[in-house]
Amino acid sequence: MSKFSKNQPVGLPPGTLLQPETDEHTEFKITVVNYDSSIHNKSHTTDIDAAIKSVELYNNTWIHIEGINNASIIEKIGAFFDIHPLVMEDMLTPQQRPKIENHRSYLFVVAKTCCYVDESAAVQEEQISMIVGKNYVISVQNSNIDHFSQIWNRLENDLGIVRDKGMDYLMYCLLDIITDNYFVLIDKLNEKIETIEDELILNPKKETLNTIYTLKNEILFIQRPVWPLRDIIYNIKSLKTDIIDESNFIYFNDVSDHVIQVFEAIRSFREMAANMFDLYLSSHSHKMNEVMKFLTVIGTIFIPLTFITGVYGMNFKVMPELGFDWAYPVLWGILIAIGVFMVLFFKRKKWM
Amino acid sequence: MSKFSKNQPVGLPPGTLLQPETDEHTEFKITVVNYDSSIHNKSHTTDIDAAIKSVELYNNTWIHIEGINNASIIEKIGAFFDIHPLVMEDMLTPQQRPKIENHRSYLFVVAKTCCYVDESAAVQEEQISMIVGKNYVISVQNSNIDHFSQIWNRLENDLGIVRDKGMDYLMYCLLDIITDNYFVLIDKLNEKIETIEDELILNPKKETLNTIYTLKNEILFIQRPVWPLRDIIYNIKSLKTDIIDESNFIYFNDVSDHVIQVFEAIRSFREMAANMFDLYLSSHSHKMNEVMKFLTVIGTIFIPLTFITGVYGMNFKVMPELGFDWAYPVLWGILIAIGVFMVLFFKRKKWM
Amino acid sequence: MSKFSKNQPVGLPPGTLLQPETDEHTEFKITVVNYDSSIHNKSHTTDIDAAIKSVELYNNTWIHIEGINNASIIEKIGAFFDIHPLVMEDMLTPQQRPKIENHRSYLFVVAKTCCYVDESAAVQEEQISMIVGKNYVISVQNSNIDHFSQIWNRLENDLGIVRDKGMDYLMYCLLDIITDNYFVLIDKLNEKIETIEDELILNPKKETLNTIYTLKNEILFIQRPVWPLRDIIYNIKSLKTDIIDESNFIYFNDVSDHVIQVFEAIRSFREMAANMFDLYLSSHSHKMNEVMKFLTVIGTIFIPLTFITGVYGMNFKVMPELGFDWAYPVLWGILIAIGVFMVLFFKRKKWM
Amino acid sequence: MSKFSKNQPVGLPPGTLLQPETDEHTEFKITVVNYDSSIHNKSHTTDIDAAIKSVELYNNTWIHIEGINNASIIEKIGAFFDIHPLVMEDMLTPQQRPKIENHRSYLFVVAKTCCYVDESAAVQEEQISMIVGKNYVISVQNSNIDHFSQIWNRLENDLGIVRDKGMDYLMYCLLDIITDNYFVLIDKLNEKIETIEDELILNPKKETLNTIYTLKNEILFIQRPVWPLRDIIYNIKSLKTDIIDESNFIYFNDVSDHVIQVFEAIRSFREMAANMFDLYLSSHSHKMNEVMKFLTVIGTIFIPLTFITGVYGMNFKVMPELGFDWAYPVLWGILIAIGVFMVLFFKRKKWM
Amino acid sequence: MSKFSKNQPVGLPPGTLLQPETDEHTEFKITVVNYDSSIHNKSHTTDIDAAIKSVELYNNTWIHIEGINNASIIEKIGAFFDIHPLVMEDMLTPQQRPKIENHRSYLFVVAKTCCYVDESAAVQEEQISMIVGKNYVISVQNSNIDHFSQIWNRLENDLGIVRDKGMDYLMYCLLDIITDNYFVLIDKLNEKIETIEDELILNPKKETLNTIYTLKNEILFIQRPVWPLRDIIYNIKSLKTDIIDESNFIYFNDVSDHVIQVFEAIRSFREMAANMFDLYLSSHSHKMNEVMKFLTVIGTIFIPLTFITGVYGMNFKVMPELGFDWAYPVLWGILIAIGVFMVLFFKRKKWM
Repeated sequence: MSKFSKNQPVGLPPGTLLQPETDEHTEFKITVVNYDSSIHNKSHTTDIDAAIKSVELYNNTWIHIEGINNASIIEKIGAFFDIHPLVMEDMLTPQQRPKIENHRSYLFVVAKTCCYVDESAAVQEEQISMIVGKNYVISVQNSNIDHFSQIWNRLENDLGIVRDKGMDYLMYCLLDIITDNYFVLIDKLNEKIETIEDELILNPKKETLNTIYTLKNEILFIQRPVWPLRDIIYNIKSLKTDIIDESNFIYFNDVSDHVIQVFEAIRSFREMAANMFDLYLSSHSHKMNEVMKFLTVIGTIFIPLTFITGVYGMNFKVMPELGFDWAYPVLWGILIAIGVFMVLFFKRKKWM
Repeated sequence: MSKFSKNQPVGLPPGTLLQPETDEHTEFKITVVNYDSSIHNKSHTTDIDAAIKSVELYNNTWIHIEGINNASIIEKIGAFFDIHPLVMEDMLTPQQRPKIENHRSYLFVVAKTCCYVDESAAVQEEQISMIVGKNYVISVQNSNIDHFSQIWNRLENDLGIVRDKGMDYLMYCLLDIITDNYFVLIDKLNEKIETIEDELILNPKKETLNTIYTLKNEILFIQRPVWPLRDIIYNIKSLKTDIIDESNFIYFNDVSDHVIQVFEAIRSFREMAANMFDLYLSSHSHKMNEVMKFLTVIGTIFIPLTFITGVYGMNFKVMPELGFDWAYPVLWGILIAIGVFMVLFFKRKKWM
Repeated sequence: MSKFSKNQPVGLPPGTLLQPETDEHTEFKITVVNYDSSIHNKSHTTDIDAAIKSVELYNNTWIHIEGINNASIIEKIGAFFDIHPLVMEDMLTPQQRPKIENHRSYLFVVAKTCCYVDESAAVQEEQISMIVGKNYVISVQNSNIDHFSQIWNRLENDLGIVRDKGMDYLMYCLLDIITDNYFVLIDKLNEKIETIEDELILNPKKETLNTIYTLKNEILFIQRPVWPLRDIIYNIKSLKTDIIDESNFIYFNDVSDHVIQVFEAIRSFREMAANMFDLYLSSHSHKMNEVMKFLTVIGTIFIPLTFITGVYGMNFKVMPELGFDWAYPVLWGILIAIGVFMVLFFKRKKWM
Repeated sequence: MSKFSKNQPVGLPPGTLLQPETDEHTEFKITVVNYDSSIHNKSHTTDIDAAIKSVELYNNTWIHIEGINNASIIEKIGAFFDIHPLVMEDMLTPQQRPKIENHRSYLFVVAKTCCYVDESAAVQEEQISMIVGKNYVISVQNSNIDHFSQIWNRLENDLGIVRDKGMDYLMYCLLDIITDNYFVLIDKLNEKIETIEDELILNPKKETLNTIYTLKNEILFIQRPVWPLRDIIYNIKSLKTDIIDESNFIYFNDVSDHVIQVFEAIRSFREMAANMFDLYLSSHSHKMNEVMKFLTVIGTIFIPLTFITGVYGMNFKVMPELGFDWAYPVLWGILIAIGVFMVLFFKRKKWM
Repeated sequence: MSKFSKNQPVGLPPGTLLQPETDEHTEFKITVVNYDSSIHNKSHTTDIDAAIKSVELYNNTWIHIEGINNASIIEKIGAFFDIHPLVMEDMLTPQQRPKIENHRSYLFVVAKTCCYVDESAAVQEEQISMIVGKNYVISVQNSNIDHFSQIWNRLENDLGIVRDKGMDYLMYCLLDIITDNYFVLIDKLNEKIETIEDELILNPKKETLNTIYTLKNEILFIQRPVWPLRDIIYNIKSLKTDIIDESNFIYFNDVSDHVIQVFEAIRSFREMAANMFDLYLSSHSHKMNEVMKFLTVIGTIFIPLTFITGVYGMNFKVMPELGFDWAYPVLWGILIAIGVFMVLFFKRKKWM
């Protein structure tokens, strides 16, 4: 399905939960972490009811769901946490625009991360949506790519302050990882640009052009989810919610700085890609022109010489020159002299 | 008539209702739906008076009018619902800019939807204007294209919550469909772009250029009504009207998200189309240059050879080489050697 | 005088009224209409004193002045209505930027309208300035072009509501006509663009390029007065004047919608003109390249053939082929074979 | 020194007054005008102390200083009028950005004017800084160019209302002249553009390209000081100063209108220059292509003819055609026929 | 490491202080200046504890740290001055975006300066971060480049007012130097542009293109840290901090003016670089075309002449012209006449 599509049939009642399309290689997986400063419980399950129940037993619960294959999972979550039907619909639709919504008892966040799955492949965009309540976070992603292993590690081994803080801090951690993923991409893009630049200056080839074109589209593709991401973090301060503690705003500011950095890097890349395109075209046309000039110069040198041989190939009865014994070698001399003169002339004009 | 024209003679008094121009294939049709949670009455008619009267008998009435062919229809509506003459004029003029106006007792909305009528045809823009009152919605469209069948279906079969909600929710449903139509277009555009891209990389042809040009103008054409559509939905919150219940703002937010998504997709398309144009030009000029280079190389190989044959075609009395028995085959050898050398030279320079 | 010039010597004291430069074909004309719901008095005069006096006798007076040839006319108006000297200066200077100013007892409006005087001619810009008081409107234009005949007609025959409303409604009517004039222009431009597009696709000529260039400048020229026109109408609401009744804001909104429509159309035209320029360049270069390729192919076919004839034109004593009776027709066969082979080769490569 | 430089060594303490660099052709000159409605005293001096003292004796004093060659002059002014050291530093630095600053007891204004010193020369930018107090204006300019002669004339001969008004009105007069200078430039630029346009359409030359390039840079150069000039005038209203009387705001509005007009003219010029560049390139390439096509056509006509002569220049023993008496004239006929056919063919294809 | 990278592994807990990577040529150095109006104590050390302790003994302390090679240094500072962990992390990360943060008891500022280390080298960006408290400033830079020697000089010799003012004034001094460094760069860029322009107009070479490309990227690179620098200074006024005295705002305004001047210069440079690129391309293509035209003209002159010699090289038995004694010189006459005619023709057409 196209990356621009809304991914839903037109005209359904809002809040309709369609059976999600899943990739057959994607496994349905729920990871539940219940924690506070002293407790840490991590379990993997596919039973959403058990996961939900644990929320009531602990101070902080993070339910992370991958590869939802059944709308009923979201329905159960919706019923238990009293989630608005439109939010439930959005969680099942992978083509949302990044946004944050304040539903009083919870925040709903849609973010996008980008990564290269493997070296050769194209950039992959992934939507991560979160419901952040007072004592729970529910995060949903489509694939099985392991984005959050480091947060799990921090939770398990009580690194940093994540276990001492509430769900708002966990939400910050998730957004931070999502943003940091873009830095990996930006380093990759930077490398690509440098490779292309070297190629451009040393040896521009036809493929270079297609590479730049693909690069331009890739930059365009990455750029789209970044700006709304910044809006999200900007809006957090004006949300008037008690889910996020004011003392944690400084962390979100930090993410915001990074998002702007990503955005500016991407903007620079766009301009650099455009410059490279222009440079390629002019370099190539330059090289082309040099070749044509050289070939034309060769032609131009022989054309007058051939004319002269034509003259003495004529069959007039009276052509005095033809009778002289020294005429032929002299003619050779003249031909060579004209040739040498023209070569020198073209060399001086820098045409050869 | 031009798609930019105001479609009215210059200088008429405002509120003048001109006889609308109608396409002869368009049938005048009124669809009336009277409904609430328990009742559903749908009728097709051409009698506007009956339609208007039913508004007083039911809680919610939706009057949908297609292909108005007579200004008196609007006049009757205007008289009954106390509509401002400028609004009545706007409803008959198909070249309005999308907008929303708060007239206290009713809202007036002008929106535009775009669709492909049939596969091969160009994009068709259609204006849909609505008057939204406390207990009625009057919607007007020019053609007989069936945009709202799914809402009728939902109303008839009590799907979703449309029958439990008021006229503001119906207004949302209409705007939602109008927006969703753009996603269909965007998928089509996306397909076109991919087709052109493949053509561009594999086999750029002259027609490709015209296709890209048409695509650029098509994108330009679709883009125009989208942005004001977003303004409409943005303005709803600041309208200070009691026709729209605050609890339904979330639905309009949802439409707003979609409109922004459409807008951003279109913006990406514009840039991609511009990139394709550039790529075409440079690919084509590249291919062209290769051809010219090849041809010039061929010429350049034979020019010195022809010169040599010219030399030995001369009629000097004393040309010792001509007399040697082995001269002719040796010359052939020299000619071939020069030719081979030049081919190798050009091959090495990558000019062939 | 240049269309960008300020049209006044540098450094004069502000409010200096210079003798206006008038075109000799322009006649000085004052049209006075005194009216209310029951009365309508229209007279043509050149006596400004009489015109001014009538203001005191009637409820509403519209004084329309064309082709002012004497600064004293403005001075008299200024003295009677207590107009600020800078306003008086602006009324005599035809190169003002459109604007609205609130001088408490009157509004001062400068607007620009554009029209084609006759079919072949260039676009003509005309400044129309208005002083709008509680019971009078004074409008000034430079030429004798009849922009407002329809308002006179409406006033005379009591069409619409113009005679029932005050001077603010008359001001709206004037601005409405001024705006509608742009729609006429836009239709003309649209026609031109379509003509050029057809020419571009079917048969691009050298003149097409100059036509597009002229079109681009024309669009640039028309665009300049449109945006400030919108500012005027936007500012009306925040003027805090009692000259414009709030209930009439809806009419100004209507004009505002039209101005935005004009502006967007012009913006689309600009982009379309830029696209056409690009398309022309590439179409032309494409066509050019095809010609050069064809010519070069012809050359390339004959070059090796000519070489062969050169070989058998050589005068070596021993050239066995020359002696065989069948050699000449066989050579013809070879020449034709090579020629045919090359033609086929080039055809297959799509170079011919 | 570069026109972008800050013109001061890096890292000096703020408020350091460096000895100003002066052009040796610039004369140090102070003009003092003391005036009110009844008095007018104008004197030229080089004694700053005398000039300062006169401020206490008269209602209004304007001290205009040209070509300051000694930092002590500014120091004396600073000491007497209690000027902030940063302001004093700015007055000596000719590379300030236009700005207005409210220092309670005085306003500090930096403006830039542009003019052509003589016809052939490049545009010259000049900074004019002013200190506007309740009863004095001190203006400083670098060169001896006579910008304000007309204000002096108005003061001397009591033209307009300048002598009846306060220092704010004088400040307006100075800014008005500064702005009007741009109109002179704009007329010059307009002329240049028209000259280039004519050249472009009738006879594009190589120099035309450099002219357009220079023009583009000139426009860029003029544009820079214009926008901040407008900001100055915009900011005047929000300054909360009692130095400028509210009743004089209308005069500053007038200047503001002119600045915007200048700005829009410059913006149009930029676009026109860009269009001319494009038109030049395509016109030139068009002309070039025509030449190459013509030359190639000539070549293409003779290539097959030369081949034919090559055929009958071969020395085969048996070549029956050579023996026929009528063969030679017939061949001429064939050659001419082929030539004519090709000419006609190329003419019909519009290649000649 | 790439200049766009975040320079930290992804997913670390916020506030993690990584061991900083340092260049081996960079020496770790702390400079401590304790001062007030009467005291001045400057010492160089590598002992952070001593430096910190001195803060308590004096009114004003400036600790300047270069080339931090150990996270513990920052940890100690953080512990003593109660710095937020995120701030500490930012001080160790050299890829921050310029910003200002108000942490009540201190301000945290990140700025970037750019300079050429030596003439030939590329532009070097350096991050300078500052913690500004009531009675201390801690500034951190990565390299050993001596940016602040002039401030040290001013402090030591009590030049200007720096010793009479508080830490906010010192912060201003640092930002002023940082900004002034850009002026040095801008002068260098200006020189480069002028050199390239001369080259462009007199003798465009292939390398010129690469130079312009590099210049464009250099401008892009410098531009990025400038705009946020302005935001910093803009935000200072709205910080609601008592660390900066309102009476010192005028100094920050001064810096702000300079930053805007830098920004505008850079924007002009970008446009000039783009214009130069365009000019290069068209100049080059112009020159190229002239060469090709000349060569083609030479070819075109000889092609018909060679055809004529071909005619009289044919071996028809009956070719009357061949028998006439005067035929050969006459033919030479004809050949020369045709040649001269063509030369004249081409000269007149300005093709040679």
